[in-house]
Amino acid sequence: MIHSIQESPLYSIVNPRSIAFFGASNNFLRMGSMMLSSVQALGYEGEIYPIHREEKEVRGLKAYSSVMDLPEVPDLAIIVLPTDIVCPTMEDCGKKGIRHAIVVSGGFREAGPEGIAIQQELETIANRYGIRFLGPNCLGVANMHQKLNPTTITAEGPPGFVGLASQSGSFVTQMFDYLHRHGMGFSSALSVGNEANIDIVDCLEYLGACPNTKVITLYIEGITRGRKFVEVAKAITPHKPVVALYVGGSETGRQAGLSHTGSMSGPNEIYDGVFRQCGIIRATTITELFDYALALGTLPRPGGNRVIILTHSGGPGATAADSCGRAGLALPQLSPETLDKLKPMIPRTASTANPVDLTYNRDFAESFFDIPDVLLSEKDADMLLAYILSPGSFADRILKEMGVPEESIPLEREKLLKEHSRAFVSLTKRHPGKPIVGFTYRSLQETMVRYLIDRGVPVYQDPERAARSMAAVLQYYHKRDRMVREDKTGGV
Amino acid sequence: MIHSIQESPLYSIVNPRSIAFFGASNNFLRMGSMMLSSVQALGYEGEIYPIHREEKEVRGLKAYSSVMDLPEVPDLAIIVLPTDIVCPTMEDCGKKGIRHAIVVSGGFREAGPEGIAIQQELETIANRYGIRFLGPNCLGVANMHQKLNPTTITAEGPPGFVGLASQSGSFVTQMFDYLHRHGMGFSSALSVGNEANIDIVDCLEYLGACPNTKVITLYIEGITRGRKFVEVAKAITPHKPVVALYVGGSETGRQAGLSHTGSMSGPNEIYDGVFRQCGIIRATTITELFDYALALGTLPRPGGNRVIILTHSGGPGATAADSCGRAGLALPQLSPETLDKLKPMIPRTASTANPVDLTYNRDFAESFFDIPDVLLSEKDADMLLAYILSPGSFADRILKEMGVPEESIPLEREKLLKEHSRAFVSLTKRHPGKPIVGFTYRSLQETMVRYLIDRGVPVYQDPERAARSMAAVLQYYHKRDRMVREDKTGGV
Repeated sequence: MIHSIQESPLYSIVNPRSIAFFGASNNFLRMGSMMLSSVQALGYEGEIYPIHREEKEVRGLKAYSSVMDLPEVPDLAIIVLPTDIVCPTMEDCGKKGIRHAIVVSGGFREAGPEGIAIQQELETIANRYGIRFLGPNCLGVANMHQKLNPTTITAEGPPGFVGLASQSGSFVTQMFDYLHRHGMGFSSALSVGNEANIDIVDCLEYLGACPNTKVITLYIEGITRGRKFVEVAKAITPHKPVVALYVGGSETGRQAGLSHTGSMSGPNEIYDGVFRQCGIIRATTITELFDYALALGTLPRPGGNRVIILTHSGGPGATAADSCGRAGLALPQLSPETLDKLKPMIPRTASTANPVDLTYNRDFAESFFDIPDVLLSEKDADMLLAYILSPGSFADRILKEMGVPEESIPLEREKLLKEHSRAFVSLTKRHPGKPIVGFTYRSLQETMVRYLIDRGVPVYQDPERAARSMAAVLQYYHKRDRMVREDKTGGV
Repeated sequence: MIHSIQESPLYSIVNPRSIAFFGASNNFLRMGSMMLSSVQALGYEGEIYPIHREEKEVRGLKAYSSVMDLPEVPDLAIIVLPTDIVCPTMEDCGKKGIRHAIVVSGGFREAGPEGIAIQQELETIANRYGIRFLGPNCLGVANMHQKLNPTTITAEGPPGFVGLASQSGSFVTQMFDYLHRHGMGFSSALSVGNEANIDIVDCLEYLGACPNTKVITLYIEGITRGRKFVEVAKAITPHKPVVALYVGGSETGRQAGLSHTGSMSGPNEIYDGVFRQCGIIRATTITELFDYALALGTLPRPGGNRVIILTHSGGPGATAADSCGRAGLALPQLSPETLDKLKPMIPRTASTANPVDLTYNRDFAESFFDIPDVLLSEKDADMLLAYILSPGSFADRILKEMGVPEESIPLEREKLLKEHSRAFVSLTKRHPGKPIVGFTYRSLQETMVRYLIDRGVPVYQDPERAARSMAAVLQYYHKRDRMVREDKTGGV
């Protein structure tokens, strides 16, 4: 196991100071041009050297007709060329002294016998020069903390804590907006393609050592180096959670993976066993993969599985209770001390059974601070799950009726919502050992929820997703404890 | 069973020409005031008579100090008053000749022994005058087609085809925005509260006869009139799909329901049996409830379970394949005829296994019309599931590079996206017997997806949700056929 990212063959690929770019031109509709445009759009600060036989300038950058002409040896070569000129290009890179590459081009192993032969040749050339490379047939990397995004789609949102190693390039380049909308961002995301030289195990190892990565997510169609995968994962999960989506387990998923990256998959049961052995949490869908990552990356370790549900509407409370039950979470009754503290704050119609149902908000400040503060102090509970309903239109109506002039309403509304949001977020500091999770059926982009998710309070679009994610956090620490225990006793 | 909504005790409650409104005042923070404000906001065209002892005018409407003073007998009374004056008010309504009411006030059965007694008194008064009423402890109705929304939150989005009968008021009043964001809207939504007089079975019967309702959704914490429920449901499901979310099956859900509406629930197995017997599709979460409603309300009856997945990205294709397998959908291979038609349109790198993976869009017009058109003509397939990726920023970049002036880009982009969306939507008419479903990880509010969902092409946020919804449609027709068959042979 590596102890720092510098030891990884991926270091110069994810953190290059300079890049030789093959395949970008002034014709924007070429894939290479789009990728270079994405790099420029995010504001990468290293040197970029486009290599182009004819153009003197590519997308405003001085172009070189050959890699040999470059004024320095770049850290990385990105190759987005037709299949048949990839090998000679790799050869040139080797001669120049370049030792790291991303081969985006397709037409290799995934394309049948002829492609397999070209891929073997590519591997041979790389080995001859000691070049480590990602791909072929991949979309490379996005290192959001280094403003490096040489993928086909412009990055959206700030950097975050989610590391991704993916056997699909789409889940690197097409998930920026998804993660941002849900309150996350990539630390680094790596697309492995055909894994001719660097594979998903190397990526896992890199992300395990990456200081910006708090949670590792994996998209897997099939793992070749099974033994090494287990070894690396086992070294990581005791200090960093890993969530994996494996799609090759169903017959339909297996077939799809085969024609996608040509990877060999195994039955679900085998992967279940491997994940269990390594302390990896398994997700069933992309939604779950990132739902779990959000909870694992933001929540403190819960003391147990006892949840208090806070709501002001019976139905959402009951569905949340149902979801908690299904996820294996318990709903304890409130202690007499808590009930005593609660009574002066809640309306007569409220229910202090769990779910705690306020029935209506008598006082926003109490709903978003005092009441959840009391519930978080309950000694017989470990977590809080709160229903968040904050339609702007509702606040607008109240402000209007309170006589706030029409033109001041938007500003006053935002102020009001942010004030309550701030109070709610401050509870995470007051109760550092108790996870606080929200759910809502409204858009995550509304002021209050957006405020919460931007500050690390996870809010889900359905209580089922919230409850399952809370259960995933419990499952992680449970597995982790078992692994640490086994490690001490020498067990397997 | 009723044959038209006019026969239902709910008719005048859902379609009143005039309303006596008790509990609205010029103090906006009262629940009744908010409800009246919602009615006004949506533009209800009938007469509204606020009843208020002191005010001469309430929210701009002439107020009456007693219901007795009203110039006519209103179709409906809406009562949002403190518990202790609800009974006398109902008595007054009866004397005036009002025969329909919504009792929003709480503090009845759900509040313990004292409340139970008041509820009994209320029932007695209503029976004496032949008043049929919804509630108490409910949020009443929203009839979007009549612009009637006397709930606490302003309605958002246009009317739709989803009927809801709910034992939670929140799922009436708090889901307008949710449904609109997902491409749906309520026809009528009914909150039953404590069901003292009209229950969820009456609501189901009403929605079964309601011409604006294409799909009925039910939120259930516990059903009292089980036998009648089965009878009514069995009469509806052969011509209209019913989806039900039952939360009382888990211990946690049961407890929550008990303190919410005081309803008695039963084990999951019993409800599973009842739903099966009636041809009702069961949903596990609110998300599923409306996901299934969307598919059932928009898709034609599929010929079978064979799906073609269309994608231009391997990962989303593989996850969709995995989800289809899990949902019991089959992925047939394309026939030689289809492959022949496809070949000239797709790049060399494309995969024509199923998922059909274009790898990239050579031509948008082909991707959104010609290629799906060929796939929908495949005789060995029944449905199409398409991955939709249409980030505006991507189109912007292409247009910019094509030399479109900066200021014209937004307009040109919208034109371009709408043109392709229109072509894609037109396929539903060309292939009327084949369901077309989309999935995306981007926001449903982006131009292309919004265009599709506004025109009845369902697009889901995850292939799992899409596949499960397609399976729910198959399940519905399967159950329906079985019921029709049993009906003919006299079976049960």
